[in-house]
Amino acid sequence: MVMNNAREQLIETTAALVEAQGYHATGLSQILKESGTPKGSLYYYFPAGKEELAAEAIAHTAQLLVKRATEALAADDDPAAAIPEFIRTIAHYVEASDFAAGGPLITVALESVTCSERLNLACQDAYRRLQEVFAAKLQAGGYSATQATHLASFVTAAIEGGTLLSRTAHSCAVLRQIADDLGVFLHIMPKS
Amino acid sequence: MVMNNAREQLIETTAALVEAQGYHATGLSQILKESGTPKGSLYYYFPAGKEELAAEAIAHTAQLLVKRATEALAADDDPAAAIPEFIRTIAHYVEASDFAAGGPLITVALESVTCSERLNLACQDAYRRLQEVFAAKLQAGGYSATQATHLASFVTAAIEGGTLLSRTAHSCAVLRQIADDLGVFLHIMPKS
Repeated sequence: MVMNNAREQLIETTAALVEAQGYHATGLSQILKESGTPKGSLYYYFPAGKEELAAEAIAHTAQLLVKRATEALAADDDPAAAIPEFIRTIAHYVEASDFAAGGPLITVALESVTCSERLNLACQDAYRRLQEVFAAKLQAGGYSATQATHLASFVTAAIEGGTLLSRTAHSCAVLRQIADDLGVFLHIMPKS
Repeated sequence: MVMNNAREQLIETTAALVEAQGYHATGLSQILKESGTPKGSLYYYFPAGKEELAAEAIAHTAQLLVKRATEALAADDDPAAAIPEFIRTIAHYVEASDFAAGGPLITVALESVTCSERLNLACQDAYRRLQEVFAAKLQAGGYSATQATHLASFVTAAIEGGTLLSRTAHSCAVLRQIADDLGVFLHIMPKS
């Protein structure tokens, strides 16, 4: 897909604002101001307005998460080493943002459960794709397809919950503990 | 502390709205309407307004979470059985709410990281108290104080992340898998 600059800028700005403050708190005027995009472009590219733009922003974030996870997990053949190392990278990222970033979909995922089917489906798709990356790594590491799918949900939940607790505490100690614990868990978990 | 009815009603209504839709989306007019409380009461009990009221609502939620967790964990002496069973209870609760409830602090915790020190501290305190309940149970089950504290964070992160993924997916399959996985993990994790 060829991305127009104004369209891309609107999507990236929205993704960053939704990550930092959620969907409800993000207004179109703030998106226009921070992206430096004229109002006409917004309605040209996203005739349905904020919800349509946010759905694209979630898809954009999903693509980034999948790319980062895939690249990071390729660093070690053993999922019990690669997954904890990826979580330590997330901890660095959260710290570098001064706890303003990390878990980019958590807020909008909960906000949209009952309020917006479109955004809810975009979040479902994003988490499904991310879990597939972990599942593929676990299966390549010797777990059965069923167990890999199962453990991929566990890993994703631990990362999202750990990011939440770390951002709340203004300390990534919890994310690093989770990296260690998941490493132990994946080492001692019998492969079926 | 003696709770006045109007004060209590304001706190409970705010807690429910913050759980369902977050802090930003919850307006004072909606709180007044749903609690059936006159505006004068709000500023009498909470002169600093919405933020003060939300901080009390978070403290109220924390108290409920601690109470529910403490009671649920008392059902079995073995933390490797009691903690998974508590997570299955959370899954029932999330399903009963049609995925509108569960993880009552997740959204406001992330919303407040950089925007409100008062609410951030209230969320930190809430998660700290909840983790202490798990840590006490794990220590009573034979883990050292350090390991119990460590694992309590892991359990809390898995629950919050699992609730997030379950609400997003409109299915509690993930929370139930996490209950099973944590059960296995706590059974095979060597006690230090």
